[in-house]
Amino acid sequence: MPRYSLGLDFGTESVRAILVDLADGRVAASAEREYPHGVISDALPAGGAPLQRDWFLQDPDDYLYCLKQVVGESLEGGGTGADEVLGIGLDFTSCTLLPCDADGAPLCRDPELRSEPQAWVKLWKHHGAAAEAQQVAEAARRRGERFLDYYAGAISSEWLMPKVLETIHRAPQVYERAFTFVEAADWVVWQLTGALARSACCAGYKGQYVRELGWPSEGFLREVEPRMAGLFTEKMPGPVLAPGTRVGGLTGEWARRLGLAEGTPVAAPFIDAHAAVPGCGVTEPRTMALALGTSFCQMLLAREAVFFEGVAGIVQDGIVPGFYGYESGQTAGGDIYAWFVENCVPSEYKAEAERRGISAHELLTERAERLAPAQSGLLALDWWNGNRSILMDAELSGLLLGLTLDTRPEEIYRACIEGTMFGTRRIVQAYADAGLPVDRFVASGGIPRRNPFAMQLLADILNRPIEVAGAEQPAAFGSALLGATVASGRGGYGSIREAARALAPPPSGVYEPDPQAAKVYDRLYAEYVTLYDYFGRAEQVMRRLRDLRG
Amino acid sequence: MPRYSLGLDFGTESVRAILVDLADGRVAASAEREYPHGVISDALPAGGAPLQRDWFLQDPDDYLYCLKQVVGESLEGGGTGADEVLGIGLDFTSCTLLPCDADGAPLCRDPELRSEPQAWVKLWKHHGAAAEAQQVAEAARRRGERFLDYYAGAISSEWLMPKVLETIHRAPQVYERAFTFVEAADWVVWQLTGALARSACCAGYKGQYVRELGWPSEGFLREVEPRMAGLFTEKMPGPVLAPGTRVGGLTGEWARRLGLAEGTPVAAPFIDAHAAVPGCGVTEPRTMALALGTSFCQMLLAREAVFFEGVAGIVQDGIVPGFYGYESGQTAGGDIYAWFVENCVPSEYKAEAERRGISAHELLTERAERLAPAQSGLLALDWWNGNRSILMDAELSGLLLGLTLDTRPEEIYRACIEGTMFGTRRIVQAYADAGLPVDRFVASGGIPRRNPFAMQLLADILNRPIEVAGAEQPAAFGSALLGATVASGRGGYGSIREAARALAPPPSGVYEPDPQAAKVYDRLYAEYVTLYDYFGRAEQVMRRLRDLRG
Repeated sequence: MPRYSLGLDFGTESVRAILVDLADGRVAASAEREYPHGVISDALPAGGAPLQRDWFLQDPDDYLYCLKQVVGESLEGGGTGADEVLGIGLDFTSCTLLPCDADGAPLCRDPELRSEPQAWVKLWKHHGAAAEAQQVAEAARRRGERFLDYYAGAISSEWLMPKVLETIHRAPQVYERAFTFVEAADWVVWQLTGALARSACCAGYKGQYVRELGWPSEGFLREVEPRMAGLFTEKMPGPVLAPGTRVGGLTGEWARRLGLAEGTPVAAPFIDAHAAVPGCGVTEPRTMALALGTSFCQMLLAREAVFFEGVAGIVQDGIVPGFYGYESGQTAGGDIYAWFVENCVPSEYKAEAERRGISAHELLTERAERLAPAQSGLLALDWWNGNRSILMDAELSGLLLGLTLDTRPEEIYRACIEGTMFGTRRIVQAYADAGLPVDRFVASGGIPRRNPFAMQLLADILNRPIEVAGAEQPAAFGSALLGATVASGRGGYGSIREAARALAPPPSGVYEPDPQAAKVYDRLYAEYVTLYDYFGRAEQVMRRLRDLRG
Repeated sequence: MPRYSLGLDFGTESVRAILVDLADGRVAASAEREYPHGVISDALPAGGAPLQRDWFLQDPDDYLYCLKQVVGESLEGGGTGADEVLGIGLDFTSCTLLPCDADGAPLCRDPELRSEPQAWVKLWKHHGAAAEAQQVAEAARRRGERFLDYYAGAISSEWLMPKVLETIHRAPQVYERAFTFVEAADWVVWQLTGALARSACCAGYKGQYVRELGWPSEGFLREVEPRMAGLFTEKMPGPVLAPGTRVGGLTGEWARRLGLAEGTPVAAPFIDAHAAVPGCGVTEPRTMALALGTSFCQMLLAREAVFFEGVAGIVQDGIVPGFYGYESGQTAGGDIYAWFVENCVPSEYKAEAERRGISAHELLTERAERLAPAQSGLLALDWWNGNRSILMDAELSGLLLGLTLDTRPEEIYRACIEGTMFGTRRIVQAYADAGLPVDRFVASGGIPRRNPFAMQLLADILNRPIEVAGAEQPAAFGSALLGATVASGRGGYGSIREAARALAPPPSGVYEPDPQAAKVYDRLYAEYVTLYDYFGRAEQVMRRLRDLRG
């Protein structure tokens, strides 16, 4: 009988399921479905007042609806029997948070609260809590809270405490009424198993839960806001479990609904970005997993906790049990290339691309590839969407330097790509400076799939080979590894590491650095760092320009 | 009998003639003709090796051919009799230099030298003498030459000594053979009158002739290059005359050729940019003439010589006799706007503009006008073509700061225009700091004619009214004022100032500053200055990037 693990990847727009053969790691079937309500940013499905700019909500029932669809489709596609799926793992965007009743019913289902935005799922990128983030961070600094060390001293408005505090400020009745606030990842597991636990990955990276310290203390919360004092002690019950720990077995109802066996074990989940780390086959220290898409994320495992500037989070057991998982990030990568293609490609280029049946991106790439490093004289700071690592400053903005009357679009395009790769190098350097050198790089995401030119620039700029992950869907694959881990007693694996070693496919390719280019890029990088330090630390002109926007 | 002055404006591509009525300043006729050989940049008309990049030559016989055409056409157009033209004035690009025989024959006419580029006219923007400029400047600094003060310590590769030194280096036989080197302005006057004199304007701004000091000394020249020691003492005979001084009368031959009266007085000429100063009606101190076109030029008259950073030249009697003429400049203005329109306008914008029958520039302007100052968060350093005033550094480059994923093309376009106007404000500030405040601004050139949006930004950024010159062709009109001055004994005027007061038309319009916008721009300007000082003085990153281009 074939044996499979089911991996579920809940992204921003859709959920994807894959069935991975526990014998050889082959992906036997997969399916994807977009959330019917997608990202809710204009008005609630129930109607009512338009939402504020930068508010992003979701409907939790979309998750369940799509889950049923994609599992059904996967099982059908592979002709898989109910008994053949031995474990379930999942990943989710985070901090994607909802308030629930004690039975797991989302408050937004309640007719009384259906028109209250704060009762819905706040998506990870919901930006309504900037003031609250500041309030949390200031109180933590004032009290010298030790948990701050694990987040390089900063609290993002996208994280759990600011999001809950926003609810207290904007809709206190929702906070009062809520039995619990729960990450969507944990909520789906709760639905499937009837057991409420907290992913150590979500709790650690987004909830300021630190294994050695526990959740932030009641005393601290009271100083932030008295009404929030009981958040962790009263409103967030459930053990914090490392990804791959068994939370429970599939309930009879969900077994029937999904066409799987009752009691099929379900693993504690992780965040989608972090799922890609084991999904890329990375389960050991000194290998950095690079998630390169619209934004960039760098993740590294290490046996020790080292605190340094440039880390968005350090979480014990957060990615692979037994290790501290380090995470850093760049807020814009492919987003900048897309911005350029949308806003800065002249019509003659567009016309030529159309005539030749290629995209504007391909035409730009073709021309940009012919340039030598440094030939354009251009240099970009890749801060179009602020800087997460290492400066943690959302007010920073993009910079382009070296423009002349001869500057051509493909030169700017190349400089934009180079800028993002210099940003990655700066982060890698911060790790090395902190005593966490990197021996190997494994990349996943849209850029390695679709942009070999950018990948070559990354190899040249880091002056290191960049392996491309073998898994086509590394996050879903990582979740399937969780399923393989909880299936251990029934033919699965003893740990994520064992599962990854046995199942994760080898790299699909390697980008080797060009030593000549690397030499030139060393010099350009030095200039990048000069600008980086000046605009990132010494001089506040970018911040003042933002303030002047009014 | 009507009485006219003939003004001739020799530009880079063409010559223009106007007939100005000495009674009321009315332009009775005008004509323009492009040089048959235009700007020679690929190969000489005689064929031969391709010219080096950035070499720009001209054929002096083009000047004479076009001169005959435009004068003939003007006289016909106005039905003007030979006796009715009482004086001739002209302006020319400068330093536009040629080597001649003793009879005024250009060396490039000689069959033996016809294939030697150094024997032809070097146009003002000919760039073959960068090393020579450095050599001249270093020797002057070493010797503490006082003339340097009048040029803020810098020698441009476009000026006379570097151009001649280049000839010595590349074609010593041309230097040996030359009876004289002469500005094209003076050469045309020499042809017309048989008298060889030197325009105080050309000599002062481009030849380092300082009224109090004379030409640079033989000792200095010997230190630069022994072979050049006799340049001014042997190879540049002729008095240095202020513009508007009578050089001589039209020869019989030229009178016949042009259909004018023999002996018609011809004035010492000036440079085209400087001709626009009286052409705009500016003949007094404290009014700054702004020439706003592809590049920008600022000119001011003052009774005293004050040395300060930011002045490309201070020349006694260089523009209007009795005053020191100050000149500063920005190497790119409208050129940057044109660069943007050519390289950065996306196809949807182009399509919309075409659908509506407007230009891309007009569409961008329409959208940029709707933005409030500082709204985009963008700020540009306008150094796409280096910085002439006040930094005198050709290695500087353009900078754009404040980019975000929401940045739109019209925002960048507006920031580019604002950058050029901040550059003007920085120069005006340098004058004020030196004790030369400006009470009035009068603008001429392509920008005031075609870009009211940019003009309004200039008024807002300077927070001062900007008058637009009444004369449609201020340079040609300024030259006609020279003709009116030499015609003094025969119904003309006693001086350029008198002529300008009587004949120059009033401003055609005024751009008034918006006080609210001006307040915001004060703050943006402070940020501009921060970037200006950092990249212009403190930090050499732009220079290093240029060096890296290889």
